[in-house]
Amino acid sequence: KPSYRIVAILGEGIGSEVVEASLKILQHVAKIEGFTLQVDYGWLGATAFEELGSYFPQATAELCDGADGIVFGAVTQGGLLELRKHFDFFCNLRPIRSVKSLVHKSSLRPEKIQGIDILIVRELVSGIYFGPSGRGSDDKGDYGYHTMRYYDEEIRRIARKALEQAQYRRGLLTVAHKENALPYLPWTRLVEEEAKEFPGVVIEPMLVDNLAMQMVLNPQRFDVILAGNLFGDILSDIGGALIGSIGLLGSASLNADGFGLYEAIHGTAPDIAGKGIANPLGTLGACILMLQQWGEVRAAQLIIAAQDRILAKGYRTADLFSQGEEILVNTATLVDLLLEEL
Amino acid sequence: KPSYRIVAILGEGIGSEVVEASLKILQHVAKIEGFTLQVDYGWLGATAFEELGSYFPQATAELCDGADGIVFGAVTQGGLLELRKHFDFFCNLRPIRSVKSLVHKSSLRPEKIQGIDILIVRELVSGIYFGPSGRGSDDKGDYGYHTMRYYDEEIRRIARKALEQAQYRRGLLTVAHKENALPYLPWTRLVEEEAKEFPGVVIEPMLVDNLAMQMVLNPQRFDVILAGNLFGDILSDIGGALIGSIGLLGSASLNADGFGLYEAIHGTAPDIAGKGIANPLGTLGACILMLQQWGEVRAAQLIIAAQDRILAKGYRTADLFSQGEEILVNTATLVDLLLEEL
Ligand SMILES: CC(C)[C@H](C(=O)O)[C@@H](O)C(=O)O
Ligand SMILES: CC(C)[C@H](C(=O)O)[C@@H](O)C(=O)O
Repeated sequence: KPSYRIVAILGEGIGSEVVEASLKILQHVAKIEGFTLQVDYGWLGATAFEELGSYFPQATAELCDGADGIVFGAVTQGGLLELRKHFDFFCNLRPIRSVKSLVHKSSLRPEKIQGIDILIVRELVSGIYFGPSGRGSDDKGDYGYHTMRYYDEEIRRIARKALEQAQYRRGLLTVAHKENALPYLPWTRLVEEEAKEFPGVVIEPMLVDNLAMQMVLNPQRFDVILAGNLFGDILSDIGGALIGSIGLLGSASLNADGFGLYEAIHGTAPDIAGKGIANPLGTLGACILMLQQWGEVRAAQLIIAAQDRILAKGYRTADLFSQGEEILVNTATLVDLLLEEL
Repeated sequence: KPSYRIVAILGEGIGSEVVEASLKILQHVAKIEGFTLQVDYGWLGATAFEELGSYFPQATAELCDGADGIVFGAVTQGGLLELRKHFDFFCNLRPIRSVKSLVHKSSLRPEKIQGIDILIVRELVSGIYFGPSGRGSDDKGDYGYHTMRYYDEEIRRIARKALEQAQYRRGLLTVAHKENALPYLPWTRLVEEEAKEFPGVVIEPMLVDNLAMQMVLNPQRFDVILAGNLFGDILSDIGGALIGSIGLLGSASLNADGFGLYEAIHGTAPDIAGKGIANPLGTLGACILMLQQWGEVRAAQLIIAAQDRILAKGYRTADLFSQGEEILVNTATLVDLLLEEL
C-alpha cells in the first residue's frame, strides 16, 4: 500500500481555494485506490514574505526535499521562479485538449476546436528568465537588459523530453525558434541532432511568430510543441485561448528525477478571491498529471471520468458559465459533485 | 504637382511579383491624383549577396537616402534587419482590421471578428534582435545568447508614437510587458510617465502571455497595442491569424523624420513564387500606408475603395480562395480588376 507525501503551497488569491478543493478529491481517490497521502503545507510568495521574510523561504525548500510532489496554488510574483530553479524543474508539460462541453466558450469555430490535443513542452529553468540581467547606463543613457542564454546541453535535455513525449503520441514535434533574428540559439540543429535517437519522430522547426499564428489558424495539426521558457509561456496561453479558457489547464514541471511541481496555468484571480467561486479544475488537472507521474494511472482515470461527467451534465463554475442549459455552481458544490461521482 | 521618389526592393520569392503589382496601381492613382512617382530599384538580401557580395549593399543605402519611401517585397534572411537599423526605422505600425468578405476565412466565429480594428505599434530597431549576442563557453559547456536590452529613451520614444496614435483613435493603449519575469525592462512605468502628455489616453499594461490569449478570446476590445521588437513580432502574427490571413496586412516602419519602409507582413512564400498567383494586397496595403504618410489621403482612399469592391465581388487570389461564390484570379488579373475599378 503505497504512501505519498506532498507539499501543498497555497500562495495568494484563489490559490488556497483551488488547492484545498483538489486535495479533497485526491484524498478521496486515495481511499478508493488504497494509497495514503500525507500533506504538508509550505509557504511561498507574498504570504511567505509576510510570515517569514522571504519569498522562497529555506523552510519551504527543506519541506519539499524528499516529497513526492508539490501542489501549487498561485502567486502574483516572487518565489515561483526561485522554486522552479531550486529543484531544477526544467521540464514543463502543458497538455491542451479541447473539452467537448466547453466548445461554445471558445472564440474559434467548433470545427476548428474538435480534437485539439497539443502537448507543450516548455523549458522552465533557463533562457531569458534566468540569464544575466540588470540595469546599466552609458553615454546613451540608462538601460535595462535580460539575456536569453541557453547552454546547448540545456536545449538538448529538454529536446530529449519532448522527443520522448512525441514518440508516445502522434510522432510530430514542432520546434519553436526565431533563428532568423536570434541565430546564436540554434534550436533546430540541436533538436535534430538529438532526434537521431528517436527515428519515429518527425521534426518540424517553425518560427515562433508563424507558430503563434498557425496555432490559431490550424490548431488540430499540432502534436508536441517544444519551446524555450519565454516562447513556451506565450504559446501555452494561446493554447488556453484556443479551447476557450485557461481555467481547465494544469501543468507539471519535472526535474531529472521525475520529482515535480504541479500547478494550474491560471493566476491568482484577485477579483474573485475569497468568494468561494473559483474553478478548481486547473489545479485538479495538475494533480491528475501528478498521479500519472506516480504511476497511479487508475486514480487519474477516475478523476478524469468524474470530471467529464460533471461537465457533461452542465455544471459550471462562474468562469465557464453561460446562460442556457448550464447550472452555476461554486467551488464547494463542484467538489461535492465530483466526490459523489467518484 | 508633387513628385515622389521611391526605392523598390523586390527581394526574393514572391517579392518581385507583389511589388510590381503594387507599383502599377500606385502609378495609376498617381495619374488620377496628379502627382508623379519615380521608381528606383535597389538590392537587398540573397539576390543582393549574389550580385553585389553584401546582403545590404552600400549602393542600396545610398539609393534610399533622400527617397520618399522604400517599397519592400520579401527576403528570407539577411539585410532586412540591417536596413531597418541603418535608417532607424524604429516605429513599426501594423494595422489589423477585419475584412467583411473574408470573415469565413478566419478560424474565429464571425461575431468575434466583426469590427476588429487594432493597431500594433512595434519597436523595430532595438530589443533582443539588436542587443549584445554571440556564442561562448565556460565550464558548463557551450552556450548562445541574445540580449533583450532597451534604453529607457528607446522605450519612451516608441511610447510617444503609440500614444499619438491612440489619441487619434479610441484612446486605449495596451502595453505588452513581462515585468513579472523581466523586471529590468519597466515598460509600464516609462509609458505611464510619457502618457502624462496625453491625458485622453487610457494605459492598460498587460503581461504578454495574457495579451496573446486575450487577442484570441476578445480581439474587439483592443485599440492600440504597444510592444517591443520580439513581442510585437509574435503579437502581429496572432493579429493576422485573427482576421484569417496575413495576406492582407501591410506595415509601415518609420524613422523620426517620417521617412519609411513599407512592406507586407508575409514572407517570401517560396512554394508559390514565380507562378504569378501571389496576393499583392499585403504590399498594396503597405503602399496605402505610404500614401497616407505622404498626406495623399485621397489616393489612399481610392485604392482602399477599389480593393473593397473587388473583394466584395468575390475575386480572390489562391491564398484566400475557397469554394463557393468566389472567383479565383491570379496576380495579373487582380491588378487589372483593380485598375478598372479605379
Ligand atoms: C524576417 C524576420 C526577422 C522579421 C522580424 O521578426 O522582424 C519578420 O518576422 C517580420 O515580422 O518582419
Ligand atoms: C508568473 C510568471 C513568471 C509565469 C511564467 O511566465 O513562467 C507564469 O506566466 C507561468 O506561465 O507559469
